[in-house]
Amino acid sequence: MDKRKVEVCFNPENLEYYDISNSHVVVVDILRATSAICAAFANGARSIIPIPTIEEARIAKEKGYMVAAERDGKTLDFADFGNSPFNFTADRIAGKDIAYSTTNGTKAIAKASDGLSVAIGSFPNLGAVAKWVKLKETGNVMILCAGWKGRFCLEDALFAGALAENVLSDSRFATKSDSVQASLQFWSLAKADVFSYLEQVAQRHRLKKLGLDDVLEYCFTANSTDKVPELVNGKLMVR
Amino acid sequence: MDKRKVEVCFNPENLEYYDISNSHVVVVDILRATSAICAAFANGARSIIPIPTIEEARIAKEKGYMVAAERDGKTLDFADFGNSPFNFTADRIAGKDIAYSTTNGTKAIAKASDGLSVAIGSFPNLGAVAKWVKLKETGNVMILCAGWKGRFCLEDALFAGALAENVLSDSRFATKSDSVQASLQFWSLAKADVFSYLEQVAQRHRLKKLGLDDVLEYCFTANSTDKVPELVNGKLMVR
Repeated sequence: MDKRKVEVCFNPENLEYYDISNSHVVVVDILRATSAICAAFANGARSIIPIPTIEEARIAKEKGYMVAAERDGKTLDFADFGNSPFNFTADRIAGKDIAYSTTNGTKAIAKASDGLSVAIGSFPNLGAVAKWVKLKETGNVMILCAGWKGRFCLEDALFAGALAENVLSDSRFATKSDSVQASLQFWSLAKADVFSYLEQVAQRHRLKKLGLDDVLEYCFTANSTDKVPELVNGKLMVR
Repeated sequence: MDKRKVEVCFNPENLEYYDISNSHVVVVDILRATSAICAAFANGARSIIPIPTIEEARIAKEKGYMVAAERDGKTLDFADFGNSPFNFTADRIAGKDIAYSTTNGTKAIAKASDGLSVAIGSFPNLGAVAKWVKLKETGNVMILCAGWKGRFCLEDALFAGALAENVLSDSRFATKSDSVQASLQFWSLAKADVFSYLEQVAQRHRLKKLGLDDVLEYCFTANSTDKVPELVNGKLMVR
């Protein structure tokens, strides 16, 4: 039997060059959307509705949703809060449905919906999302990085390498992809000391300038939650 | 004075997310278009006209041009030859104008033409093209990888790393780009033994299957020529 293929796409803008109709897609936006989504479900959110545009986020707010929305790291004026994982505290969001719109992450989730199934990946749920992939009996794997406005992001590719390493250690999976090889190389260079490696990452410095880099320890520490948010009828939920 | 910026774009499909109006662009398609173009000028070609589509290549043939054209590594039936660097021998092409169309490389050259100036880069002219960049008195640098049908290619990014390392060793240049950092990492992992590193590269195996991997030594050996092909009025020429 052919092995199940593992692939990485560095930007949602390039996803059209892949056939994902037989792939389970893991969406990755490490700083900070998918880390924040994992934090939300770890703290008991009921659902998160990904909202691509600012206008749609505003309408969700008018309809009475709790709204998390940012662009370029800054919370939008009408939103309840932005996309720091620390915003999604249990006292604020447990049992709630949240409308969520971000610079890059929600666009990636929308594109991913052509896949067999869609899950949210981040270091906080690394082991859990790897297990989610491996529990599927068939189908390939697409790790979709959100990137940054059509450009490559090292921190997303780094996570892709960590996830690919875990999945490829199962002999049912294989890869012939240069983007997977590249991601594995980043992870091999980083894993002994991730926080030193991050000094090279542009988004780490963008967040620092904005005073938003308090999230680094949370965003790059693996396996603080076993929750895997999945896209079901346009909503992210934990089964 | 602000330092001149070095940037890498992994695919022509993503170039629209960068402003290259103040950038000198180096186009890279290591296996095999830009390596072949450098071979052609090393062997005395007068000009190369990049032709994006198969139909335009056919028309060029009807007009009497010598035509080099391939798709997916295979020479098109109406063409004089394909894109192995070994096709561009002095006895065949010295003093000639050649119409040239390839799977990924000619598309990248077309997109690059929005830059301040456009040159062709490959390992055979690595030192020369780095010098070309550094001799420009102002302007940023965009290293544009051709990639493979909208996807990331490791061999192009590897060359981008080698070129970026050379250019960044000049203190007038700097970078804040994750794609540059990634490329430098590939080159740092590869440079001690490039041919072992290539075992990971998908295109290396595609060419092997087609019996076309005799070009590897030429394509990954630096500095066999000092010629820098530049795009001038839609034609590649050496000044």
